[in-house]
Amino acid sequence: MSDAGLTRADAEALDAADPLADFRDRFVVTDPDLRYLDGNSLGRLPVATPDAVAAVVREQWGDGLVRSWHTWIDWGVSLGDRLAEHVLGARPGEVVVADSTSVNLYKLAAAALDAAPGRGVVVMDAEEFPTDRYVVQGLCRSRGLTLRTLPSDLDDGLSPGALRAALDDDVALVVLSAVSYRSGALQDLAAVTAAAAAVGARVLWDVSHAAGVVPLDLAGSGAELAVGCTYKYLNAGPGAPAFLYVRADLQERLRQPIQGWFGQRDQFAMGPDYDPLPGVERFTVGTPPVVALAALGPALDLVEAAGVARLREKAVRQGELVVALADAWLAPLGFRPASPRDPARRGAHVSLAHPDAWRICRAAIAAGVVADYREPSRLRLGPSPLYTRYTDVWDALDRLRALVSAGEHELLPRDPSRVT
Amino acid sequence: MSDAGLTRADAEALDAADPLADFRDRFVVTDPDLRYLDGNSLGRLPVATPDAVAAVVREQWGDGLVRSWHTWIDWGVSLGDRLAEHVLGARPGEVVVADSTSVNLYKLAAAALDAAPGRGVVVMDAEEFPTDRYVVQGLCRSRGLTLRTLPSDLDDGLSPGALRAALDDDVALVVLSAVSYRSGALQDLAAVTAAAAAVGARVLWDVSHAAGVVPLDLAGSGAELAVGCTYKYLNAGPGAPAFLYVRADLQERLRQPIQGWFGQRDQFAMGPDYDPLPGVERFTVGTPPVVALAALGPALDLVEAAGVARLREKAVRQGELVVALADAWLAPLGFRPASPRDPARRGAHVSLAHPDAWRICRAAIAAGVVADYREPSRLRLGPSPLYTRYTDVWDALDRLRALVSAGEHELLPRDPSRVT
Repeated sequence: MSDAGLTRADAEALDAADPLADFRDRFVVTDPDLRYLDGNSLGRLPVATPDAVAAVVREQWGDGLVRSWHTWIDWGVSLGDRLAEHVLGARPGEVVVADSTSVNLYKLAAAALDAAPGRGVVVMDAEEFPTDRYVVQGLCRSRGLTLRTLPSDLDDGLSPGALRAALDDDVALVVLSAVSYRSGALQDLAAVTAAAAAVGARVLWDVSHAAGVVPLDLAGSGAELAVGCTYKYLNAGPGAPAFLYVRADLQERLRQPIQGWFGQRDQFAMGPDYDPLPGVERFTVGTPPVVALAALGPALDLVEAAGVARLREKAVRQGELVVALADAWLAPLGFRPASPRDPARRGAHVSLAHPDAWRICRAAIAAGVVADYREPSRLRLGPSPLYTRYTDVWDALDRLRALVSAGEHELLPRDPSRVT
Repeated sequence: MSDAGLTRADAEALDAADPLADFRDRFVVTDPDLRYLDGNSLGRLPVATPDAVAAVVREQWGDGLVRSWHTWIDWGVSLGDRLAEHVLGARPGEVVVADSTSVNLYKLAAAALDAAPGRGVVVMDAEEFPTDRYVVQGLCRSRGLTLRTLPSDLDDGLSPGALRAALDDDVALVVLSAVSYRSGALQDLAAVTAAAAAVGARVLWDVSHAAGVVPLDLAGSGAELAVGCTYKYLNAGPGAPAFLYVRADLQERLRQPIQGWFGQRDQFAMGPDYDPLPGVERFTVGTPPVVALAALGPALDLVEAAGVARLREKAVRQGELVVALADAWLAPLGFRPASPRDPARRGAHVSLAHPDAWRICRAAIAAGVVADYREPSRLRLGPSPLYTRYTDVWDALDRLRALVSAGEHELLPRDPSRVT
């Protein structure tokens, strides 16, 4: 077998020298043969999580009953503070955990638009993650605003030049992912924020594909608004509650549209009129799903112990390994890199385009390689540096090479909706 | 001890004859001395729930990883169908589990208002549950609508006459709880719906305090829209995801404001424009918190096995027991009933007013009686017929009598914000 100048023994040596290698033991791995490269979609289960969830269920709910709300009531804020300090580069009191990413995006986008009367345009990448696009479309539609959708390179992300050219005094808001869900293209948060600020516009960042694997310096970059999920590189479980960030000085100037009782000052006074809390909690709405929230603490323990700077360093190396092996092994089989080449401009996942990517993705799962498929014709490979080994990457690419060489995917039926 | 003509032995006899008595064994009871009368706030933990949650965490997430989305993706709809059939009296495809009650209320109220252009008024009980009031205030504020807030009797609920008098051709929407959170007053869903329909208005029901303990016949009553929570009499855990109901014929005529990707047709095609699903799923938004959802199935098993009709029957008897014992024992100590007297007009909880209710509530918890406090000066007692025994009710009232007689509550500090 050709080895791209990098043998499996080389990958084993990288694992042996990996300062984060021991973190893998802190995740549940039931199938040692599985090569899981979908941490960009759903992170693995930390070993500590089942007991943490069970304690909340059995002790806090089962035994403590309603009295445990004294504990739960602060979780959104305390977990938000941990995210602020260790993941987002924000200050205490600027982040809260609540709702889903989509709902949070809606709340903050609406609040920002309300605070920019007279500006009639929202700017967005045409290749933005679907829920972000749909949410913003709805807001523009209901408010009679213009959505300025910018064409961008599917594999390289929205260019700084295209963004700058779209900014003018009519722009109220730019909604943009820090890392593109499809290509993995990484934006320069400070530069985009500054360009928007130069015309008086705000930026709402979706950091879902960056949080926990790319150092985010929201405070330092001047970021005003952000949302993100906790179930990818943060490993808090399927559909775990999301977070939102509002820079401290903005919090009292913004008013969100969903005026729920968790955002109310002196909530249990249950006063007649909505009077939002002074801090970031004003952007919460209803009773949070405590049992799901219980999985976030033990997941953050691991990210905090490893440190996002070290996670980034390993993620870059693993991304480079994916690219090198794909160039050597998969390009001859019809794959084309569909992510930025420069690792400084890429998040932690790498996309590969192939006309038959959907069937290859299905065949890969059958061969013990879990990656995911995204339209059009992309296979996404997402090593997660807390638990993915270099040998996992090597093996996954090797299996992909083998199955495509053998035409295993061609034995599968085509999905009629996904013929390219 | 005086016994209101009803001794503890009488309560024991009621328990012995209770056809639902065995259901108590299907709940976790860690403290046999505790008299828990707060099922109206947070229901007890079913015995089957910890294992069900653990299986989702360990097997579906831990082992199945992202592949388990094939299972999870349908949960909102399948759990909604169970609620429709067994709890809400709705048809399959009319209910979905998603988000929080507050967010669902926002979505459906906004959708209903958008579908009633030219009508400028929303009608609401001044004593409505706070989050409902705040959400509707926000919607009225942002849309320039008039919120017609109706004064109502704190102890008896909004009267049919007051509601009818407030309805005219300007009314777009009435937002009303089926059972009042404070007094427990139960509305006549069919009569209110008909009165609103007579002027061309819609009603959005909040059935949080009714679901699982009052037979709801949403289809038969003509109800068009409803929301509710699952953590009270449905026992799905703290902050468990909520549900929403939209009558089938209305679904395609309404468009909700938070256009998330879970409401999108062919979600993973990730097409350019929002194109909502045809059914009730169009009212969902983002990725649901799966680990929290996992607790709803085993909780519904119990409600379904008992049947809401039988639960209602027992709830009425237990409510009557609360009222009888309160009349005999607590009225002489300064308590006043603060719920409708007629059990046909009352949900499952009973409120008692007392000037020192806040301290009495704290002292009761110390005495092993968990009830809850609501402004102003109300002690709420909420037996939950799946697991509350008649003797629990008897003991709780007996302990309340004893501690207030002894002035135990007067040893506690006053909460300065709650001096009445």
